[in-house]
Amino acid sequence: MREGSSEFEATFHPKSIAVVGASSDERKSGAKWVLGLKAAGYEGAVYPVSAGGGSIAGLDIFTSLSSVPGDVECVIASIPARSVLQLLDECIAKRVRVVQFFTAGFSETGSTEGESLEREILKRVSNSGLRIIGPNCIGSFCPQCHIPLGPSSLGRTGLAGHVSFVSQSGGIAAKLVEYGIARQIRFSKGVSVGNSIDLDASDFIRYFVHDEATHVIGAYLEGTRDGRRLFASLRQACAVKPTVIWKGGRTEAGAEAAMSHTGSLASSAPVWSAMLQQAGAIEARSLEELADCLLLLQQLGPVHVRKVAIVGGLADGGGGISVSGSDACNDNALAVPPLESTTRERLLDLIGEVGSILRNPVDVSPAQFRGLETLFEAIRVVASDASSDLVIVQEDVDIMHSFLGIAETREVNEFLTRLPRETEKPMAVVLPGGAAELHRVEVENQLLAAGIPVFPAMSRAARAIALVSQLHA
Amino acid sequence: MREGSSEFEATFHPKSIAVVGASSDERKSGAKWVLGLKAAGYEGAVYPVSAGGGSIAGLDIFTSLSSVPGDVECVIASIPARSVLQLLDECIAKRVRVVQFFTAGFSETGSTEGESLEREILKRVSNSGLRIIGPNCIGSFCPQCHIPLGPSSLGRTGLAGHVSFVSQSGGIAAKLVEYGIARQIRFSKGVSVGNSIDLDASDFIRYFVHDEATHVIGAYLEGTRDGRRLFASLRQACAVKPTVIWKGGRTEAGAEAAMSHTGSLASSAPVWSAMLQQAGAIEARSLEELADCLLLLQQLGPVHVRKVAIVGGLADGGGGISVSGSDACNDNALAVPPLESTTRERLLDLIGEVGSILRNPVDVSPAQFRGLETLFEAIRVVASDASSDLVIVQEDVDIMHSFLGIAETREVNEFLTRLPRETEKPMAVVLPGGAAELHRVEVENQLLAAGIPVFPAMSRAARAIALVSQLHA
Repeated sequence: MREGSSEFEATFHPKSIAVVGASSDERKSGAKWVLGLKAAGYEGAVYPVSAGGGSIAGLDIFTSLSSVPGDVECVIASIPARSVLQLLDECIAKRVRVVQFFTAGFSETGSTEGESLEREILKRVSNSGLRIIGPNCIGSFCPQCHIPLGPSSLGRTGLAGHVSFVSQSGGIAAKLVEYGIARQIRFSKGVSVGNSIDLDASDFIRYFVHDEATHVIGAYLEGTRDGRRLFASLRQACAVKPTVIWKGGRTEAGAEAAMSHTGSLASSAPVWSAMLQQAGAIEARSLEELADCLLLLQQLGPVHVRKVAIVGGLADGGGGISVSGSDACNDNALAVPPLESTTRERLLDLIGEVGSILRNPVDVSPAQFRGLETLFEAIRVVASDASSDLVIVQEDVDIMHSFLGIAETREVNEFLTRLPRETEKPMAVVLPGGAAELHRVEVENQLLAAGIPVFPAMSRAARAIALVSQLHA
Repeated sequence: MREGSSEFEATFHPKSIAVVGASSDERKSGAKWVLGLKAAGYEGAVYPVSAGGGSIAGLDIFTSLSSVPGDVECVIASIPARSVLQLLDECIAKRVRVVQFFTAGFSETGSTEGESLEREILKRVSNSGLRIIGPNCIGSFCPQCHIPLGPSSLGRTGLAGHVSFVSQSGGIAAKLVEYGIARQIRFSKGVSVGNSIDLDASDFIRYFVHDEATHVIGAYLEGTRDGRRLFASLRQACAVKPTVIWKGGRTEAGAEAAMSHTGSLASSAPVWSAMLQQAGAIEARSLEELADCLLLLQQLGPVHVRKVAIVGGLADGGGGISVSGSDACNDNALAVPPLESTTRERLLDLIGEVGSILRNPVDVSPAQFRGLETLFEAIRVVASDASSDLVIVQEDVDIMHSFLGIAETREVNEFLTRLPRETEKPMAVVLPGGAAELHRVEVENQLLAAGIPVFPAMSRAARAIALVSQLHA
C-alpha cells in the first residue's frame, strides 16, 4: 500500500492521458473516450493510441504508447484482454502512474483464463509503481478537471462540487452522474473500479477521507475481498465525513448476479447491514435512495431531524397530501407533532377557519384564496414554529398552474427560495412529476440552485431525511 | 338507495350543468369551473349562476338558478356554506338530479355548526330525488364527455379510456388525473366525494361494477361511515373488475390528519388491510403505487407473474442493473430464474462471451457492440424464453444517448414496441429520469402508446407487478 501517493493525483488530476485502443471511427468506444475528453474541455494532453494510426477529434493517433513524445500519467485502455500484458510493459517503461482497464473478460466471466490473466497482471506490475483500476470498469471522473465518466462523446460532467463516490458498477456510476447532473448533485470525484484487482473501493474511500474537496462520500458496492480492510476504511471515513453505501446483491438473485458481474462473493445482507451500521455509514437500498441521500447531504449537511412540519395545499387540494405525507413520515419514524399554540392562533388570524389548518400537516389552501401575501405569511408562520426540526413543503406544479397560473407559481417559488434563510429552518420540497413536466423541471432547478433539496415524492423525502438523521443515532 | 338510477348519468354524462357561484373574475374558482368546461369542449349546456350577474367565457351569468331557462341535470356549487340550504330548495324546484358541493367548512372542521348543517342538508333533500356529492369535494370527471376535474381553467382531461376512480380527497384525485395524463392512463370516470354525506365511495364503486366503460377501478379512501357496506361493494367489484385501493391515514399521524380532512374516523391499518385482502382488492400504499397498478392493469390486464426475465445493458453498463434489478424483484417476491439451456446456447452464439450474459438478468451490452440487429435478436431470445411470465427491460435514455446516439435510441425503441406482439410475452419497461428529460418523455410516450407499461425505477415496476399478481393468489 502506498496511500497518499500520486496514483490518485494521476487518476483525478492527470496532466496527460493516453487512450490506448483509440479509433478514428467515432462510433467505437475507443474513439468516444477521446471525443468525451475534448468535448468536456479537459486541458491536459490527450494522446490517442492505436496500431492502425489515423486521427480522431483532430488529434493524430499514435501507433504505440512508446511513440508518444511527452510524459503520460494516466492510460485509459480499451483493448482486448489478450493485449493487456504487452501494454503493461509499455506503461512501466513510460513510467505511467495509473492504467484504467475498460477491457472486460476477466474473473467476472468465471473462466480460469480470466482469473489467471488477472494474477499475471498483478505479478507484472508489482513493485513497478504502476497502479491499476479495473478491469471491467469505466474509470475515473472529475468535473473540476473536465474528465467525464466513461466513453461518452457528449463529455457531460455537470458542475464541480464536493460529493465523491466509488462504484463497483460502471452502469450505476454513469447513472448516478446523470441523476447528479439532472438534480444538481455536484461531484468532486468519482471512480468505477470494476473487478478492482489492484486499487479497490477501500483505497478510494481512504483517499476521500483526506481529500479536502470531498465533503460527502457515496459508494455502490457488491462485495469485497477484504472485509476487515473495508470496515476499517469505512469507519475512518464515517468519523469525518457523511458516508452513504448502497450494497447491491442483498437478495439471493441479486447475489448471484453480483457474482457474475464483478466476481464478488457477496456476504449475507444482514452481515453487511450490521457492518455498515457499526462503521457509522448510511445504508441506501437503491440508486434512488443513494442519490436522494447525497443530494440532501450536499444541500443541508448532516441534518438531525426527528420532527417535521408539513405544508401542503399551495394551490388547492392539500388535504389528501396532509394525510399521505403524515403516513410517509410516520412510516419512516419521523414524528409530525402538533404546532405550538401561538402558531395556531396566528394561523387562525391568517386563514380564518378552524379545523385541519391548525394541525400539522397544514393545508394552507384557504390562505391562497386571500392572496399570495397571506399564503406566504401562513407558510412562514408554520416554518418558524419551534416544534419541528425541518419543514417539508409539498408543491405541485400541475395543480398550481391549474389553480394559480404560471406567473403566480413563479412568485411562490421565489418566496420559497428565500424562506430557509428567513426562518433559519431547514426545508425540503416535494415536487412530483406530472403533465407540466417542463415547468416542473424549471421550478426544480430554481429550488435546487437555492440550496433546497427537492424530491419527487413524499416517501422519497421522508426516507432520505430519516436515513441521514441516523448519523446522529 | 336508488342504485342504477340517473344520478350517475347526471354526474358523468349530464346534458346540462349549472355552475352556481360563478364569477366574471377569471381568477375566482367559480369562474374556473365554467372556463374549464368550455376549454375541455363540454358539449352540453353550461349555465353560470351568480347573484351579481355579468358574464364569463362568453356566457351571460344568470342571477339565480330559477332564472335559468332550460333543464339543469347537474349543479356544481362554489358558494359559502350559509347559502347551501337555499340552493337546495332551488335545485329541488328545478328537478336537478345531482349537486356537487365544492364548498368546504362542514364536518371536516370539527365544528358543531358544520355537523348540524350536514344533517340539515340531508333532511332537506330526503325523498326529493336530488342527490349530493361532497361537500368539500371537487366533483366529477369524464374525459369522454369532456368534463375536466375541478375548477381548472385549463380543462385538461386526457384521452378517454377504461379506468375509473373515486377519491375522498380532491387533491389526490387531481394529482391522479395529472399522473394519468402524463403516463397515458386513460380514464373513463372519476369522482372526488369529499365528506360524502350522501353519495359515497361505496355508491360509486357499485356503479362502476355495472358500468360497461369501466374495466379497472381505483380508489383513495380515508375512512367510511359504513364498513360493512364498503366491504360488500368492494367484494362485488373485485369479483368482476381489478380493483386497487389506497387507504390514506394508515399511521397515527396520518389518521389524525384524515380526521380533520374528511372527518373520517380511521380504523387501524391492519383492519383495513385484512378487509381489502378479504374483498380481493389490491392495496396500494402511496399515490405512486396506485397509479403504477392502474397503468399496469390498463396496459397488460390482470397479469399473473411469478417469474421475470430482466434485460439490461441496452447501451452499456448493464451489470449493476442486473444486480439491483434482481434485488428489487426478490424484495417483492418475484423470482428471477435461470434461462433455459437452449436460450443460453443461442445467447452464446449472439454475444460470444461466457459468464453474466448467460444468466438471468441478462446484460446484453456485448451484443450491442456487434450492431443493433444482434442486440435485438439477443433481447428477442431472452423475451421468448419459456421460464419467465414477463420480461422487464431496463432502458436508460441518458446512457443510450451517450453510447449509441439519438437515432439508434429511436431504433431500439421502435423494436421494443413490436417485441411483445412478436414474442407473445408481456413486457414492462423501466425508464429512469435523468439529464435527457425531453428525450426520455418522448421514448416513454412512444412505449406507452404501444401498450407497454413504463415505470421510473425497477423497484416501482417490481412492486406494481407483484401487487397486481396478488389478484391470482
